[in-house]
Formats: sequence, structure tokens, C-alpha cells
Amino acid sequence: MRLQHFNWTSSGGLTLLDQTLLPAEERWLEVSTVDALVEAIRALRVRGAPAIGITAAMGLVAALRAHAREPRAAFARLVERDALVIRGARPTAVNLGWAMDRMVRRAGATSGETSDVLAALEAEAQAIWDEDRDACWSIAQHGQPLLSRRGTGATAPGSADPVNVLTHCNTGFLATGGIGTALGIVHLAAEQGKRVHVWVDETRPLLQGSRLTAWELVKAGIPHTVIPDGAAAGLMARGKVDVCLVGADRVARNGDVANKVGTYALAIAAARHRVPFYVVAPTSSFDPECENGDAIPIEERRPEEVTRPLGIQAAPGESRAFNPAFDVTGADLIAGYVTEVGILRPPFDRRTE
Amino acid sequence: MRLQHFNWTSSGGLTLLDQTLLPAEERWLEVSTVDALVEAIRALRVRGAPAIGITAAMGLVAALRAHAREPRAAFARLVERDALVIRGARPTAVNLGWAMDRMVRRAGATSGETSDVLAALEAEAQAIWDEDRDACWSIAQHGQPLLSRRGTGATAPGSADPVNVLTHCNTGFLATGGIGTALGIVHLAAEQGKRVHVWVDETRPLLQGSRLTAWELVKAGIPHTVIPDGAAAGLMARGKVDVCLVGADRVARNGDVANKVGTYALAIAAARHRVPFYVVAPTSSFDPECENGDAIPIEERRPEEVTRPLGIQAAPGESRAFNPAFDVTGADLIAGYVTEVGILRPPFDRRTE
Repeated sequence: MRLQHFNWTSSGGLTLLDQTLLPAEERWLEVSTVDALVEAIRALRVRGAPAIGITAAMGLVAALRAHAREPRAAFARLVERDALVIRGARPTAVNLGWAMDRMVRRAGATSGETSDVLAALEAEAQAIWDEDRDACWSIAQHGQPLLSRRGTGATAPGSADPVNVLTHCNTGFLATGGIGTALGIVHLAAEQGKRVHVWVDETRPLLQGSRLTAWELVKAGIPHTVIPDGAAAGLMARGKVDVCLVGADRVARNGDVANKVGTYALAIAAARHRVPFYVVAPTSSFDPECENGDAIPIEERRPEEVTRPLGIQAAPGESRAFNPAFDVTGADLIAGYVTEVGILRPPFDRRTE
Repeated sequence: MRLQHFNWTSSGGLTLLDQTLLPAEERWLEVSTVDALVEAIRALRVRGAPAIGITAAMGLVAALRAHAREPRAAFARLVERDALVIRGARPTAVNLGWAMDRMVRRAGATSGETSDVLAALEAEAQAIWDEDRDACWSIAQHGQPLLSRRGTGATAPGSADPVNVLTHCNTGFLATGGIGTALGIVHLAAEQGKRVHVWVDETRPLLQGSRLTAWELVKAGIPHTVIPDGAAAGLMARGKVDVCLVGADRVARNGDVANKVGTYALAIAAARHRVPFYVVAPTSSFDPECENGDAIPIEERRPEEVTRPLGIQAAPGESRAFNPAFDVTGADLIAGYVTEVGILRPPFDRRTE
């Protein structure tokens, strides 16, 4: 299965599958301005740390096309200004700033006219995408040995009992430019004929698990069961989980990880029940500037995402809500970090690329 | 504040506030048959272990009124049959079976005509209610010393900083025949002028936290903040929680507790962060027949409660869901059990009444 959720348009613009409408509707939208790109990222029409980085780079190129007739110096200033605006769209995923840094550096390193710079930026955005697609593929391969039933060793194709993977949020095609990170390991295993069953944390408040991960798994024909986030610990207590695989929005130098809110509780429960807990992310999600989890900015989103699930008022209008999009899981709870260069362990002194 | 959510009607029937419609609508319904009572309990129009026990007893009386002209022997058989049907409505909360046992015993111990038995049953149902109201009051008083900021000692009225209580599901007026259990401690503290702030776990899948607990706290004017269940562990890590107070649907002899799904994950996180974690329940929720948590039946409810939050389809129609209403928290994670007879610790050899 190959599932694409963004692409260049024929005129060099960016088109995105609007993930806020899934699974009910598959509607694509076109992005040709910085404002539209920032809105799409903030509203989570595109989300997932790797996908944000890639589409931000592509969207920057799409927006810059309107300025192709500017003189080179003015165009260079536009690149820097737009990149700065775009990197402010969301604070936690490091891939966004990382992709913008690459674009600005590439613009600065390109000689010639404005058209040469624009062409170089398009190539850079495409490279960011291509590298992520390749990284996903390598990650999925490095992760295969983790798919074994606890105490029974690796599960061969044709084995009677599935490996039970528990995951949180969405880390598949819809979160990346390729097969996915944590869920990519599952996708590849299924393609290789391994028997896998996925416990899908619904992932409140925005239900990326039930809306997006379940949708991907239906498309891929992979057995899965959606659960309320609060049910995961009880499943572990009953021996129903062989391994936890989650993504990352940012990995600090000491191995602390910011990921979708609820990840930390999962990691604590996994530690109690000795369920291996792996973070799966490309090295583009590792931030060498971040010493530890305390240094990772955690995005707070609108309280209505909590009090109005799917647009329906659940709590009294007078009630406040607190809506941190992410939490921080300490490195001590993480068995390993599955990346495109292998399974790593901290400290990470620098980007491992 | 006094908040009533069930009562006798003028004709001796049972009337209930339909909790499935809160907070949007306050609609009362009348229950005069066993079928209607079972439906109300199964659909969670009334819920909360103590409230289920009380309203089941009252509803049994309401249903039996239609048979007041039966001969005594036939009536006695009806009492047993109806009690058996009602106790099957939900499996986990022990109060339901406990209340039915009391009603059947009372009928058997009453001499005279059918009308005498009916009057005795009405008195027994009223006694179950009255005892729970008193138990709630005693629980709330025994629980006051727990409301202290970590490391700073008890908070006196007028103290500048509120005590931050984290709770799960609903354990207030709406769950009992009085001021509540875990939330009753908070209600009483607020009435005594203590500064309390409540972190309200929204409590997926049925959102009893955002729908019911927040509604009660708005009515009582108590500061509170609704959070996704997955955000609780992160709050503890940041020192924002002074104490966790939760209810219980059943307490086993060794101290293991069945409570709303998600409680176990909270307890694990609280242990990691040394946040005191108390279970608050009347002794009617203690089951001397249950050796430990493994012996507690855990109700599984319809998958649609997970896949269709508030009636809106969230997951693909092809996706399975697993919806255990409760989970089991081991006694080792529980600091103490706040009951009407004081703060207890296991093992509990018998009902402590």
C-alpha cells in the first residue's frame, strides 16, 4: 500500500489532504500563500513532525512563486521573512524549524538569478521529502526485530499469534513523507506477511488515533482495535501488549522526548509492566540544541478542543480547560530510539546524519 | 449547595435526572417498571456505585407497587425475581447486588400482609439512601486532612494558594445519595472556605468528568479545569497536583479497586511522582466476597461509545473498538481508603460497618 497525502500541483503549488476531515471525507486543498500554509499547519490539516517539515518547505516554494520576478536581493529577503513566519506556526516539532533552516541556507548558498534560487529551493524541498521517504523505509526495516511476542522471540510469517503493538496518535503515511515512523514499522511488517494487531489509542483531544491511524490501518487491511487512552494501562496489566511504538515531535540531546499528550502516561505504564517502549523518529526530529525535555517548548492549544469534542459541547460553557498538545517522556522510560541509521541510545551529541 | 438527582414521586414512584443529557439539558424521567429501571441503569441515566444501589432499591419498590394486591407468597416471589433481574443490569459496582440483597432479606424478615412487606421495602430503600447520605457526610469530614499542599501542611481557610486535587469520572452528588465520595471531600472543603482547585479528567469514553463533574463544580462555584485524561501525568510531573481522589465501584478484600477505566494509569503516574492517591468510597462498595482484583467482573460496553463520541462517528466504520468500563488498580498504589468509618488500609476482613 502507498498512501499519499500531499503533492506538488502541476503549476508547482502544494496540495494537501485535509486531515481534519478524515475519516469522513477525503478533501484536498491547495496552498499557494504563506498565510494559507500557516493556517493549514496550525489547524492540523497537515500534522506529524516529519510531514510538517516537508510540507512547510514545499509550501514555502509554492508561496514564493508569486515573487519570481523580484530582484534576487529582494527575493532573498522574502525567503528569510516567509521562513520566519512559517517556523512560528507551531512550536514543538523541531522538524519545522529544521526544514526552514535548510531552505534559508540553500537560498543563501545558491548563485545566479531569482529563478535559480527558486529552482534550488524546489530541489531542496523535494530533497527533504525524498530523504524522509527513505528515512521512513530504513526506520521500518530497523524496527522489524522489535515486533516479537514478549518471551517468545520473533514472530515469523505465518505464525499463529499476532504481535500486539500499542501506539498513540498517528505516525504513519499521514504523519510523514513515506510509510511512516512508528506505524511504518507495522505497515512494513504487514507487507512482509507478519501477523500484527494494533491497539490504537484514540488520542484525545483530537482523536488522531481513531480518525487517522485507524483509517490507515483499514486501508492497509491490518487488524486493529481502537481504545480510549485510559484503557492502555489495563491492557498491559493483562499481558495484551507486546511492544509500544510511538513517534516524537522533538528528541532532546539527553533522550527526553516530546510527543503527543498522553505518551508520558503510556511510558510509565509500560515501565511498570516491562513492556518495551520505543520512540520511532527520523534524525530530523532530534534537536542537538535542546539539552533535555525542560528545554522543549510545549504548545498549548485552544481549550475548545477539549470541551467541544468533534464540535459538540461536552463541558459546561463556564468550565475552563487546559490543552497541552504534547508532554515530555523522560529518557529513562525509553528502551531505544528507532531511526533511519539504526536503533540509538542517548546521549546524542549531534545529529546522527 | 445541595443537589438532588433522584427522588420519590408523590405516588411512590422513582424519578431520576437523566445524566446522559447533562450538561446540555436537565430532564427528569419517571421509573415505574423493572424494565425501565434496568434500561436507566444500563444506559447510565443514573450511574455511580452508591447512586445505582439506592435508585435500584427505590426503583424496585416503585415497580412492585403495581403488584400490591398479590397474595403475600406470590409477592415475595416477585421481589426475588425482580431483584435478580435488576442486579444483572450492571456487573461491576458491588452496591447494586448489595442493595438487592438487603431488599430481599428485608422482605423475608417482614411478617404480615403484602402491604406490610411493601411498606418495609420502602423503608429499607429509604434507609439505604439515608445511610449513604450520612456516609457521604462522614467521608467528606474524614477526607478533609488530605487536602493539603504537598510539603506545606494543611491549607487553612483564607490561604493564598489553592490545593490542587485531581479527580477522575464523577464522584459527587450525581454519583451518590448525598454530597458525594471523592468529590464530596472537595464540596465540603469549599463550603468550609478552603481554597481548592480541581483538575477534572474528562474521562473518556463517556466524559463523566467534563459532562458531570464540571457541571457540579460550576453549580458549586468551585474553580476547576477540565483536561484530557492523557494530560494528567504531565501535570503531576510539573508539580501541579497535590492529591488524587477517586471513587470505587468495588473494593476487594486485599484492597484492589475497580473504578472507571483510566484510574489505573492515574495511580501509576501518581506513584511515580509521589502524589498521594486515595480511594474514596462508602463501605457499601467493599466486597468481602472478592479476594482481589482478579475476581472483580469488568463490564465491557458497546464499542460505539468509543468510536462515536457524543454520537459523532470518529473512527472508520470498519474499525473495531474495545470498551472496558473499568480497570483494576492494585492496592500497592493506594495510600488509603477514605470511608464513613475513617481512613482504612487493607486487608479488609469483612465489611467494616
